Amino acid sequence: MQDIRIERTTQPRQKPDMATVRFGRSFSDHMFLMNYDSKNGWHDARIVPYGPIPMEMASMVFHYAQEIFEGLKAYRTAAGKIQLFRPEENIRRMAQSADRMGMPAVDEDMFLEALKTLIRVDESWVPEMKETSLYIRPFMIATDVALGVHASDSYLFCIITCPVGSYYPEGINPVKILIESEDVRAVRGGTGYAKCGGNYGASIRAGVKATRQGFSQVLWLDGVERKYIEEVGAMNIMFKIEGKIHTPALNGSVLPGVTRKSSIELLRAWGYEVVERQISVEEILEAARDGKLEEVWGTGTAAVITPVGSMTYKDETLVIGGGKIGEVTRRLYDGLTGIQWGTVEDLFHWTVPVSK
Amino acid sequence: MQDIRIERTTQPRQKPDMATVRFGRSFSDHMFLMNYDSKNGWHDARIVPYGPIPMEMASMVFHYAQEIFEGLKAYRTAAGKIQLFRPEENIRRMAQSADRMGMPAVDEDMFLEALKTLIRVDESWVPEMKETSLYIRPFMIATDVALGVHASDSYLFCIITCPVGSYYPEGINPVKILIESEDVRAVRGGTGYAKCGGNYGASIRAGVKATRQGFSQVLWLDGVERKYIEEVGAMNIMFKIEGKIHTPALNGSVLPGVTRKSSIELLRAWGYEVVERQISVEEILEAARDGKLEEVWGTGTAAVITPVGSMTYKDETLVIGGGKIGEVTRRLYDGLTGIQWGTVEDLFHWTVPVSK
Ligand SMILES: Cc1ncc(COP(=O)(O)O)c(C=O)c1O
Ligand SMILES: Cc1ncc(COP(=O)(O)O)c(C=O)c1O
Repeated sequence: MQDIRIERTTQPRQKPDMATVRFGRSFSDHMFLMNYDSKNGWHDARIVPYGPIPMEMASMVFHYAQEIFEGLKAYRTAAGKIQLFRPEENIRRMAQSADRMGMPAVDEDMFLEALKTLIRVDESWVPEMKETSLYIRPFMIATDVALGVHASDSYLFCIITCPVGSYYPEGINPVKILIESEDVRAVRGGTGYAKCGGNYGASIRAGVKATRQGFSQVLWLDGVERKYIEEVGAMNIMFKIEGKIHTPALNGSVLPGVTRKSSIELLRAWGYEVVERQISVEEILEAARDGKLEEVWGTGTAAVITPVGSMTYKDETLVIGGGKIGEVTRRLYDGLTGIQWGTVEDLFHWTVPVSK
Repeated sequence: MQDIRIERTTQPRQKPDMATVRFGRSFSDHMFLMNYDSKNGWHDARIVPYGPIPMEMASMVFHYAQEIFEGLKAYRTAAGKIQLFRPEENIRRMAQSADRMGMPAVDEDMFLEALKTLIRVDESWVPEMKETSLYIRPFMIATDVALGVHASDSYLFCIITCPVGSYYPEGINPVKILIESEDVRAVRGGTGYAKCGGNYGASIRAGVKATRQGFSQVLWLDGVERKYIEEVGAMNIMFKIEGKIHTPALNGSVLPGVTRKSSIELLRAWGYEVVERQISVEEILEAARDGKLEEVWGTGTAAVITPVGSMTYKDETLVIGGGKIGEVTRRLYDGLTGIQWGTVEDLFHWTVPVSK
């Protein structure tokens, strides 16, 4: 494995006030960089001060969006230790994204070492306040300076981090979701299961429309029939119907969320039945009308477990659980965050210590 | 309209040898830049030396591919004059792309003025050799320094140019096309009609696979049924069957090509019947087997009119027109390029002079 060269900043950045910090706006002192080209493979692994990099305007990433990313967090436990949550899942997913986008994967051990080393260097940036963490954004961009659509020969892999509070400025209150019936985010055979920029770019217009109408996020339907529920903007979604939990299956157009997977494992360990299957929007509307839809929540690294208070489809709005947080939603939130912040025993061995 | 500030280079770049130049690898001396933010709108229009720009790694474009582009060309006529080909079509399409991606449009007059001014400044970069032109790449990227998926508040609009020869190193020989049956590029409700980076990123893996197998480009099928023909990597496609010309209709997932539109107009003016409709791959295979498929060609700014010599679908390869250039393909190529290089009268008023 390559050594990681470390160049420490001489001008430490101002740390944000964690009570008011906005998600993804304040970056830590350092970033990890590593270059790839087909001749040399991955090389020049280094940690340098966070700051701008000169980019030629003909760089492929600006034109053809050959770009992928990940999102995970480092947590500071009550004992002051720092830990990651299932980083190997993000590392593996990034390799899958790379494959879909014709990009090279990063060696798994190197990736984990890069994460740990960067967080150790920026240890003081892992916040202590309740509900806060260090959001970690690994990403890879195509850097060939060339027009003409092709697989880039050169790439930059980068990890930046930022201390974050709760994803929703309002805290863990139930959110209002708009079921999008026109724009489509992903389709079978497309890039839905990959964490590539294009999926998110395609989703922005619908997000803006939803926000203007007072919704927090958009729920996407499948691209083929526009009938089956896929996922929310930055979360997978789960429904509790008559005591059982239902969630859309990983069909190739849904992102395989780490929080989704962990939630399913936790729920099953607690004795809940969890079904992964195709779920039509009609079925959910029906269950809600009949009073059988007991809870709805989203799962995601940034958003953790987010209760869904209402869902709007075309002209119909369904209020779920009287707009209050449901029992399983709350239990999942406490269970997961408990493991993440080290207040609940990590029976699944999900956490990975960062400190040496 | 804003004034364009011009800062000329003091270190002119080396011009490439036009006999061997690769597409999109040599850039002219200058580029046009203009910034947007929601408070000031578009501002600071300027032409500066081509060169790298410092970019923060948290810039939105690297993560969520909120990025769109265009492609058009400037041609030098035998009389030495420089002209653009239907730039208003590209300007309008870029506004449509911007709308789909939740981005601000560039004022049409400003856009045209930027194109003309930049090409005047880099006049010496418009090549003279036969079959060469100056490829122009306007594009817009999201520049907010913020994670969290949202519509960026700030954007950079940029125009870079490069002298190019023929798109295909082999010249105007019939190309081999692979009909892609697994990966999907675009779907109804998605971003297919927009010229956004994500569409191209999604297409790269299939392109690599096709190239490895000796094909020149991939032909995409629709995302819903994977049955109907949409377009080629960087071209729209046309079929001549028993004297009539057929091309996929603009259904929302196909890029509305300027060369496609111009070809249809030319063909109709010449008395050909052109039908825009849904075309299944089965129908084309059938026509080919029955000897009714007379010609196939692609249309695109970079690739102009490209004869398709063979199409491969799963295990079947169809050779078209004995692998030679068809009569209509040749006539279209000559007709279009004749107008573009000023050797044929521009009856449609498609060209726009750049020289004052
Ligand atoms: C589209 C989408 N779905 C689901 C998720 C949830 O995935 P994870 O739990 O791995 O964060 C995310 C975000 O991370 C996402 O962007
Ligand atoms: C996907 C795609 N289809 C079609 C075209 C042809 O469009 P135009 O004739 O405007 O260049 C292009 C390229 O320009 C393209 O990228």
